[in-house]
Amino acid sequence: MEIGFIGLGQMGKAIATNLIRAGHRLHVWNRSPAPAQELAALGATVSAEPAEAARGQALMTMLADDDAHRAVLIGAGVYDRAPRGLIHVNLATVSVALARELTALAAQRGLAYVAAPVFGRPEVAQSGKLNVVVAGDPAAIDRIEPLLAAIGERTWPLGSSPERANVVKLAGNFMIACALEAMGEAAALVRAHGIEAGEMLEVMSGTLFASPVYKVYGRLIAEQRYQPAGFTMVLGLKDVRIALEAGQAAHVPLPFANVVRDHFLEALAARRSDYDWAALAEVSARHAGLPSAMNRE
Amino acid sequence: MEIGFIGLGQMGKAIATNLIRAGHRLHVWNRSPAPAQELAALGATVSAEPAEAARGQALMTMLADDDAHRAVLIGAGVYDRAPRGLIHVNLATVSVALARELTALAAQRGLAYVAAPVFGRPEVAQSGKLNVVVAGDPAAIDRIEPLLAAIGERTWPLGSSPERANVVKLAGNFMIACALEAMGEAAALVRAHGIEAGEMLEVMSGTLFASPVYKVYGRLIAEQRYQPAGFTMVLGLKDVRIALEAGQAAHVPLPFANVVRDHFLEALAARRSDYDWAALAEVSARHAGLPSAMNRE
Amino acid sequence: MEIGFIGLGQMGKAIATNLIRAGHRLHVWNRSPAPAQELAALGATVSAEPAEAARGQALMTMLADDDAHRAVLIGAGVYDRAPRGLIHVNLATVSVALARELTALAAQRGLAYVAAPVFGRPEVAQSGKLNVVVAGDPAAIDRIEPLLAAIGERTWPLGSSPERANVVKLAGNFMIACALEAMGEAAALVRAHGIEAGEMLEVMSGTLFASPVYKVYGRLIAEQRYQPAGFTMVLGLKDVRIALEAGQAAHVPLPFANVVRDHFLEALAARRSDYDWAALAEVSARHAGLPSAMNRE
Amino acid sequence: MEIGFIGLGQMGKAIATNLIRAGHRLHVWNRSPAPAQELAALGATVSAEPAEAARGQALMTMLADDDAHRAVLIGAGVYDRAPRGLIHVNLATVSVALARELTALAAQRGLAYVAAPVFGRPEVAQSGKLNVVVAGDPAAIDRIEPLLAAIGERTWPLGSSPERANVVKLAGNFMIACALEAMGEAAALVRAHGIEAGEMLEVMSGTLFASPVYKVYGRLIAEQRYQPAGFTMVLGLKDVRIALEAGQAAHVPLPFANVVRDHFLEALAARRSDYDWAALAEVSARHAGLPSAMNRE
Repeated sequence: MEIGFIGLGQMGKAIATNLIRAGHRLHVWNRSPAPAQELAALGATVSAEPAEAARGQALMTMLADDDAHRAVLIGAGVYDRAPRGLIHVNLATVSVALARELTALAAQRGLAYVAAPVFGRPEVAQSGKLNVVVAGDPAAIDRIEPLLAAIGERTWPLGSSPERANVVKLAGNFMIACALEAMGEAAALVRAHGIEAGEMLEVMSGTLFASPVYKVYGRLIAEQRYQPAGFTMVLGLKDVRIALEAGQAAHVPLPFANVVRDHFLEALAARRSDYDWAALAEVSARHAGLPSAMNRE
Repeated sequence: MEIGFIGLGQMGKAIATNLIRAGHRLHVWNRSPAPAQELAALGATVSAEPAEAARGQALMTMLADDDAHRAVLIGAGVYDRAPRGLIHVNLATVSVALARELTALAAQRGLAYVAAPVFGRPEVAQSGKLNVVVAGDPAAIDRIEPLLAAIGERTWPLGSSPERANVVKLAGNFMIACALEAMGEAAALVRAHGIEAGEMLEVMSGTLFASPVYKVYGRLIAEQRYQPAGFTMVLGLKDVRIALEAGQAAHVPLPFANVVRDHFLEALAARRSDYDWAALAEVSARHAGLPSAMNRE
Repeated sequence: MEIGFIGLGQMGKAIATNLIRAGHRLHVWNRSPAPAQELAALGATVSAEPAEAARGQALMTMLADDDAHRAVLIGAGVYDRAPRGLIHVNLATVSVALARELTALAAQRGLAYVAAPVFGRPEVAQSGKLNVVVAGDPAAIDRIEPLLAAIGERTWPLGSSPERANVVKLAGNFMIACALEAMGEAAALVRAHGIEAGEMLEVMSGTLFASPVYKVYGRLIAEQRYQPAGFTMVLGLKDVRIALEAGQAAHVPLPFANVVRDHFLEALAARRSDYDWAALAEVSARHAGLPSAMNRE
Repeated sequence: MEIGFIGLGQMGKAIATNLIRAGHRLHVWNRSPAPAQELAALGATVSAEPAEAARGQALMTMLADDDAHRAVLIGAGVYDRAPRGLIHVNLATVSVALARELTALAAQRGLAYVAAPVFGRPEVAQSGKLNVVVAGDPAAIDRIEPLLAAIGERTWPLGSSPERANVVKLAGNFMIACALEAMGEAAALVRAHGIEAGEMLEVMSGTLFASPVYKVYGRLIAEQRYQPAGFTMVLGLKDVRIALEAGQAAHVPLPFANVVRDHFLEALAARRSDYDWAALAEVSARHAGLPSAMNRE
């Protein structure tokens, strides 16, 4: 297929690369030019501005936050100049409010809006093993099936209303953040009793919690290894914040999200915004008076 | 081996049965006589009082809480009358304070104290697939190895100080409770947006969270099925409470444990003490104004 | 002085009435016409649209939330059509972000922006006993001094940057919400032990806590009397939410605000949005299984 | 009256001094002898052991925590050797469980147990202006009225069941701790926006919160002055902990108490156990990355 692709951060670049390898022809655009040049070397066409990438059968985007979506899709005229019938496949984790807004705007412009947020860290994206939760017009989803197949190991259909995929994605990221916080508090508890975090986390991730989230992040926490980040504290805070907003809109208290949000804020106040979000665990260590990556200069 | 076994609740009876099947000779005692009679039918000898079961090479106990341990082991004279050299293998989840107290008391009486708390619900105990975290005198642990092999699929050694196994067990149960709460809040969030809890939980427990805790409890939460309980709200509250006490003793704040404790208390105030602890999820549903098992009469 | 006044809810009407009584000439506008007519009977001139009220030396506004400010001041052209040199005196509790935005916008239009949020419930506004925290251009504040003197018993100057008054107002409302929650939890604790909330609250508000917040709200809580509302749950949620946003912008965790926000959300989910915010106390009662105004049909 | 007095810490010594000045004859005992000698200089008789002070018409005690009560009243034989008919007036903040236990024990020994916990810091005790909440046998309370009059400015009767006074005292101390935490969070919020804590706290404690708790502690927080302590972090933690236990026993969640408890634990982990409990505010400052007394070496 011929498609556009906007947003070539760690995740976007890995996904676009897999699309090219699967034989799709990509028109790419990125705010900073270097990643676009890398993809050009693999065969992609570099667009001079965002709206130029809105061509072919679909436009995939992987942008950082709600503001970036508004700036590029609306501000830079992508939606205004996109050809009618184009399917916008949004891979990013956005707020439920933005999902609704873009769904309506796309419909007005004669575009189809498909929400397809992905689960997986950059290394999972590189190996094409993402899990994709997808919702939107069934016909549009059918047509982009080859694209989703190229980037993920499994697609989870969630109905025809795009925001449903976003709500599930938010719930999922919230659950990951909770797992990080739970491991962090448990690690502080055992460390304060003279047991290494790894001794405990190995038992858990080898038995009742034997799953990617606990294995991958349990190791990072046990080794206190937070750089380079696969997913930063800043992005973690963003996702918890929009989960809280989705909760607020529907009158759903999320007390665990509050705790996590506070710990992200404390980490940012301690200038750790670029650490991997697994560093949530270090906030619990700091509170308990244990050596913590939050205290290093 | 010839051993004693005290405490034949759901877990204890399942474990004792596996020990008998593995060829060990058991002297059993239980507060209410019926379960002891069941084991007698399998070949166990029923002791007339607790202290009578303290014979052979080891005494295994699976009692409900700290008070029950004090009543039976100290109050009913088990420790006073146990033969010197007997190994007391404590399978239960007890407080760190009690673990220390019993370790010291056992040493005074010439007994060995091995902490061997187990992870697994009753059905796991029945199938002999428990995970056992064990700590205590290495020679004693060596000698009881055939017993642990008969009840669990894997033993996790945690050193020679018994309380280390208890701290890890508390950390583990705390992490399970956190997973329940996180699933419950996430379920409330998606339900309030028109998505069934099961739709979301199936994605999670099929991918990033593909592990026993999320699969088993995710299903109970999706189906709102909390009776009969594998592990009750009352026991869940007990374990979170002693995790908080262990935290307090070492100056470790555990904010997630606070949230979970509050939700257990609310469930008890709503007379749901005998529900499975997965029903934590229903407290979040209630707070969000969703149909909840906490509201039924 | 000749001034405009926009926003005649419970608070705005009481304040405008005092201004008229003090001899000022008012041009008033309100979304629904009835309150404007009441003031006309006292001598005010009713403006046909918001921008018409922007005349004389100052424009006072008392609008409900950030959205209403944007709709009226920007959307309805008040700022565009206001005469240069007019002093906009904003009496409402707005977000720090909006305070900054309006300060900049006013400066561009040649207007002065003074933040003058007020502390006090409607009955306090009626008696002209509000406490006003004020910040902005000192010369402008000097000129509006007669207006502030007419509505409050005391003005608290907080410097020349308007947002400073807003931050202090948010901190103050947050502290009131915390006092409500603390009284609510304490009331649940004593009630569950067979003591009436009033017996305890009377001791507190008669001694260590002998101040308006505890006396006024302590009585409402003791009597479980939440209607008619002096300040609704919805407005309380709004203020806690913008306090949390102000905290987030500056990386300040506010765990008490989280608890309060969750309880407001639960009250809204239970359809109690129009109760006085003192009804926060009923959420704690509900959680403890006590008779609660949150459970009534 | 001739009475005994046990426990001469900061509070106990101040109270005993006022009793002597009011003309009562005191037999005093204290674990460390120095304070007893000071009172001897004022005319008190020093008892050689605790039980010797249990004479005359009443025994007043002001001990630090539940353990100290058990050690002195039971362990050191005070209750065993006290003359029948003696009224034990317990001025301390104890757990509800201990209040019940002592009430029962006193009845068995033919003693009367009156709970009379006091509100007020050491300087208030010195000036005889404590507020006393009192519960117990009405006849006994009548007889000790002259004693209560000598130490406090007002007595608040709470019925004939002693534990009622303890529950109210716990609720009160919990409310003070909440006020400290609320001021601390509000202070962090304004400081992070460039406003001094004192600027904001002066407004609050001069208006809506014009009461002793906010005035006294607001000043300590504004000046970050936490030594010497009027009431230490350790004692604050103790009181919040027993409030949580009282809540747990009656199934009452107290989420504010959880936050406060966590912040006390963090302060203890940071070795600030001997700071005044107003230093709770410094934990919020630390979390926000502001200069904090928790970080000093």
